[in-house]
Amino acid sequence: MTSSKSISLTEVGPRDGLQNEVRNLPTSEKIALIERLSAAGCKEIEITSFVSPKMIPNLADAAEVVAGTSSLPLTRFALVPNTRGYERAHAAGVEGVTLVLSATDSHNMKNLNRTTQESIADLVPLFERARMDGLQARVSISMVFGCPFEGNPGLGRIERLVGTMADKGFRRIGLCDTIGIANPNQVFDWMSVLRQRFSDVEFELHFHDTYGRGLANLMAGIAAGVRRFDSCIGGIGGCPYAPGATGNIATEDVVSLLEASGYDAGIALDGLLGASDFLADQLRKSMSSSIWRVHHSQCAKAA
Amino acid sequence: MTSSKSISLTEVGPRDGLQNEVRNLPTSEKIALIERLSAAGCKEIEITSFVSPKMIPNLADAAEVVAGTSSLPLTRFALVPNTRGYERAHAAGVEGVTLVLSATDSHNMKNLNRTTQESIADLVPLFERARMDGLQARVSISMVFGCPFEGNPGLGRIERLVGTMADKGFRRIGLCDTIGIANPNQVFDWMSVLRQRFSDVEFELHFHDTYGRGLANLMAGIAAGVRRFDSCIGGIGGCPYAPGATGNIATEDVVSLLEASGYDAGIALDGLLGASDFLADQLRKSMSSSIWRVHHSQCAKAA
Repeated sequence: MTSSKSISLTEVGPRDGLQNEVRNLPTSEKIALIERLSAAGCKEIEITSFVSPKMIPNLADAAEVVAGTSSLPLTRFALVPNTRGYERAHAAGVEGVTLVLSATDSHNMKNLNRTTQESIADLVPLFERARMDGLQARVSISMVFGCPFEGNPGLGRIERLVGTMADKGFRRIGLCDTIGIANPNQVFDWMSVLRQRFSDVEFELHFHDTYGRGLANLMAGIAAGVRRFDSCIGGIGGCPYAPGATGNIATEDVVSLLEASGYDAGIALDGLLGASDFLADQLRKSMSSSIWRVHHSQCAKAA
Repeated sequence: MTSSKSISLTEVGPRDGLQNEVRNLPTSEKIALIERLSAAGCKEIEITSFVSPKMIPNLADAAEVVAGTSSLPLTRFALVPNTRGYERAHAAGVEGVTLVLSATDSHNMKNLNRTTQESIADLVPLFERARMDGLQARVSISMVFGCPFEGNPGLGRIERLVGTMADKGFRRIGLCDTIGIANPNQVFDWMSVLRQRFSDVEFELHFHDTYGRGLANLMAGIAAGVRRFDSCIGGIGGCPYAPGATGNIATEDVVSLLEASGYDAGIALDGLLGASDFLADQLRKSMSSSIWRVHHSQCAKAA
């Protein structure tokens, strides 16, 4: 177990959050959101996704968002589902790409129309191209802790999958609890095993708060030595498998909890609250984050 | 650290939840709620509070609620703030009383109009009377992990307070994070120290989810060996110091998390969801619990 008190957060709101919102934002407001997140201290942001605009119309302006954020002191990641997406992202000028697959064949077929093994075969040349092009690359594996179609895939299957990815050269591997079904004991046990077995892999964890367990799972990941997590401003985005449910763990709740617990993410809470206020205005809805609700209740009380 | 997988929950919704709701329920509906909670498997419920009806009009029917639930297989607790409340509760026929005070003088003065030490002096004879009357007695200490007026009271102060209560004979001592400000590292560290030092005290923890940390704090308490917690159906009740914020940790979220994590509270999740549906209808609002939202989104999807 590492004793480092420094935690790295990758902000995924402009991608994972906005892609699942009913209301779309104009490109200029997406850029303004990313500027606010950067000003708050976010150093790495997944700013968009180069998927087919037919699939996710909200992110059809991916290249414009990249162009409009080039002067910010950020490592800008974009999700790329395939070669075409990679080429568009590279041409647009991102610093990093997020490659994706699912731990279960059922979800991988539904999402990417191929098996998990077929996805791995597709990702390896993209990973090689990213290396040659000087781009950072991370892989995000969906449905690691549970799948709406197959249930819990089991640690053994995840160990084999991580082993395959590590053999292919991947060193930054994200394990995603896409439907928020993980529990803290599972996270602690699995991450302890995986970190010991794959000591040259940098694991990152991506939690959703669907069942209210997101922050408990984050703390379990920290206890097991993980120091890199995804989070999402405002906790927006929801869950496509449970419409109306909460989305990703909210960046402001994460930063507040980390500060209280003696960890440091290098991000200013008041800057994040400004960003989530801006987002609430743009999306014309309340944010899912607890801190946002408390902040507004206190403002209301003071007024 | 105990390895027991059995967790005892005290349901506090009919008291801590309903006392803070804007909408009051008719007595018959309070009784119907308690019947549903009992049928779901709750074995201990804080069903009301014998405070002055002028202070908390929602609970003015305390004696009727006790009378209407006497045939249920429950240990029924009532909160009693003073001798008058104790006498009313005993006359009504509860099986247990919850005695209350605050860890900080500022909050104790505001809530009970006396210092913490003065409250202890008042509670000792009530505790003795409960013992002579054959009633169970627990003490709940508010603002243990943080106070809106004094901040973090510090572990040393809590150790001295618990020591005083233990010397007076109290064996069941509840530590309440009344404003939801605790963090999991604090909970784990403090409870590890307190359980070691006061090995003959049975600690119980009462968490609010104001900052979204409730379930993470619960898991930290379990990791430190605590096996008894308060929870509240629907997560209702809010926080008087942050209007609009979330209330107690929701019983259905707790039971779902415990089941997933390999613990057993002896309570059926579907029964709890029936109870929170009933409560949502009565209060004419959505519940704060994550499970309730997911359940309704899935119902909506299936419809």
